[in-house]
Amino acid sequence: MQNPWKTLSSRIAYENPWIRVREDRVLRPDGQPGLYGVIELRPSVAIVALNEHEQVALVGQWRYPLDRYTWEIPRGASRDGESDILQAARRELREETGIEARTWRSLGAIDLCNGVMRSTEHLFLATDLTLLDAQPDPEEDLLLRWVSFDEAFRMVMENELREASSAAAILKTRSLLS
Amino acid sequence: MQNPWKTLSSRIAYENPWIRVREDRVLRPDGQPGLYGVIELRPSVAIVALNEHEQVALVGQWRYPLDRYTWEIPRGASRDGESDILQAARRELREETGIEARTWRSLGAIDLCNGVMRSTEHLFLATDLTLLDAQPDPEEDLLLRWVSFDEAFRMVMENELREASSAAAILKTRSLLS
Repeated sequence: MQNPWKTLSSRIAYENPWIRVREDRVLRPDGQPGLYGVIELRPSVAIVALNEHEQVALVGQWRYPLDRYTWEIPRGASRDGESDILQAARRELREETGIEARTWRSLGAIDLCNGVMRSTEHLFLATDLTLLDAQPDPEEDLLLRWVSFDEAFRMVMENELREASSAAAILKTRSLLS
Repeated sequence: MQNPWKTLSSRIAYENPWIRVREDRVLRPDGQPGLYGVIELRPSVAIVALNEHEQVALVGQWRYPLDRYTWEIPRGASRDGESDILQAARRELREETGIEARTWRSLGAIDLCNGVMRSTEHLFLATDLTLLDAQPDPEEDLLLRWVSFDEAFRMVMENELREASSAAAILKTRSLLS
């Protein structure tokens, strides 16, 4: 399939350490001129950490953009220059929860808000866990909670756990394990 | 749970008809000052349209932000003033694919990129379908394709269909129907 869009010019409309907004002057598929704002995020990771009791690690925190407290699986953005995404997942899990895992399995990746955004989150299933001390970032204020996998699945299906990557990763894990 | 963040001031850093970027001066949970950029999108909808042959409607299009052709379930943003989200789903499905459905079931909602974004997508399962003419927006160049539900599920699990809302909605549907 060929790209039906033409990019005429591109500028950075907004940038901070986490997000960048690019605004392109384009010709649309119908040939008409337009503007396309594209939000660019660094690749990110999300991890289903499953212990020997079939419990999943959930992280609780206040999500400022939603103005709401949420429970999710451990997640985070990769760092600049962190090209090994599995390494990013190991780091993020270790920092947020203190968990190290000996066995890692990819659950694939998902693209978020792909109409306006270049944002890919890589999903992992981590098992054979060891619990050490967490080292969260200073802007994070996190709680760690273990729930049975069945409870996590119920939370997704009943819309109590509705963060996109967490939902996709838990549902994929269930399909893999059942 | 109490909001541990304090908002000191807020400004619109970027805006177009689809996205708005707000930049807030904040005090973080640790009391330190900082900037928080929040991307705001209108609520959106995604629909698993399942026909009487257990086939799912997939929409193919070039996704400019990803620079890639994708297959997804029908999706779109609600319009300004469109407060009934089911009505938005009916409109979006009708416009993109020409499909009307007599039976609608909520699959819950998901929040996308909630660390930097206020973006909620409402998921639906639509059945008892009638096929009419599609009326896509002029900037859209869409293909409609029917695949068996099992094939759609396989595409999600094997990472061929990796748009977040589509993946979550197809996996939720499978859990509901199996």
